[in-house]
Amino acid sequence: MRNLLTRRSIRKYSARPVDEALLTRLLDASARTQTMGNLQLYSVVVTRSADMKAKLAPAHFNQPMVTQAPVVLTVCADFNRTTQWALNRKAHPGYDNLLSFLNAAADALLYTQTLCNLMDEEGLGYCFLGTTIYQPQQIIDILQLPRLTFPVATLTVGWPDECPAQSDRLPVCSFVHHETYRDYTTQSIDAFYTAKEQLEENRRFVEINGKETLAQVFTDIRYTRADNEAMSDALLQALNKQGFITESVQ
Amino acid sequence: MRNLLTRRSIRKYSARPVDEALLTRLLDASARTQTMGNLQLYSVVVTRSADMKAKLAPAHFNQPMVTQAPVVLTVCADFNRTTQWALNRKAHPGYDNLLSFLNAAADALLYTQTLCNLMDEEGLGYCFLGTTIYQPQQIIDILQLPRLTFPVATLTVGWPDECPAQSDRLPVCSFVHHETYRDYTTQSIDAFYTAKEQLEENRRFVEINGKETLAQVFTDIRYTRADNEAMSDALLQALNKQGFITESVQ
Repeated sequence: MRNLLTRRSIRKYSARPVDEALLTRLLDASARTQTMGNLQLYSVVVTRSADMKAKLAPAHFNQPMVTQAPVVLTVCADFNRTTQWALNRKAHPGYDNLLSFLNAAADALLYTQTLCNLMDEEGLGYCFLGTTIYQPQQIIDILQLPRLTFPVATLTVGWPDECPAQSDRLPVCSFVHHETYRDYTTQSIDAFYTAKEQLEENRRFVEINGKETLAQVFTDIRYTRADNEAMSDALLQALNKQGFITESVQ
Repeated sequence: MRNLLTRRSIRKYSARPVDEALLTRLLDASARTQTMGNLQLYSVVVTRSADMKAKLAPAHFNQPMVTQAPVVLTVCADFNRTTQWALNRKAHPGYDNLLSFLNAAADALLYTQTLCNLMDEEGLGYCFLGTTIYQPQQIIDILQLPRLTFPVATLTVGWPDECPAQSDRLPVCSFVHHETYRDYTTQSIDAFYTAKEQLEENRRFVEINGKETLAQVFTDIRYTRADNEAMSDALLQALNKQGFITESVQ
């Protein structure tokens, strides 16, 4: 995968259209990814209409990529199609539960990443929007996602109109463990995170946010306890409404 | 990705060892995959010891790949490392909730799939074991996974010693929707599933399982309601024990 080592998320796209045949070819090829029991527990909703992008934007906190990108892809965990198939074939499906949601979410995310890797190969730019599961009910309503489907990933896609600096990564020894998990210590945290903290862009990031440490930017501003807990509640409600969690679990 | 279109899951491995330097290079390169806030919310536990493989095997229903493969990789959602980092940096992490689990699981699964695609490029064989989330507590205990980590994917890895037939896939139009989700009908289910049902290997699969339809093999034997519900309960308990779900949610 020649472009993997130089990849970066792309948030600005040129006016060049994303060809329908190219996109379909990549969406099709990505389906070679392994999937649970070969059931392909995912669906992709392709958004090209400006009107639909404008509707989706607030669910993604109005990040400008959503309306600026030629194509927005919402990848969904999907046990609806398999359930419909079973109901049409004298079978009794039982996929309205948490395990089935996670199985379908895994299928959808693995599929999504092969698609990302294929887009890198083609030189197509994309940005993965983690916001998809932050306000899922909005997306469900806009895309008319039925029971037993759930949005888990969004990609904004287009030909790149920027070449941002590549972001840093932790050393491989920081996240690979041998035989058993070796828990972190003050010393190993220092060894693994100091280089990241000393990067010029990260020091600036701390400064403009008025914080003392880089970690505080994440805990106090970007991903706070209050936000995480409120969005966890909304997530549970949406999972319940989509039929993946029963009342008793909530 | 030249090998994607011909990929298949590999369950039999040759005696050729998986070189440590090669594996580390692939585990490192996979980290170019996008991740939430560049936090890399995953860890990988590498199992090479025969003793540890034997311990893991029951958690994967004793599928023979687990003990036969030279390497077993367990990829974990990991908010422990980030939390330790924050605690060491005067920050107040709030990642003991469902949203954070799903964010970390997404990071871990995207990472896993890039690794799979890289292994395809190298000609390495692998099999993705969906069983990882079926009996997670066993894996947590064996690998000594701390609070705020959770196993989400297992790959058995080795040089291929088989070349099985490629499995079929649904047509791309069956899982791609435009602008909004177009729900399935009796007619579209027939159109999308009949080719799969008529494949010789699937007809045989129905016959040897003594069923009337292919869907019944999935609903009555492979992924039953009773199993899914029991494993959903065990999953919730493990998520609670690992600190991702509070008592009140259960």
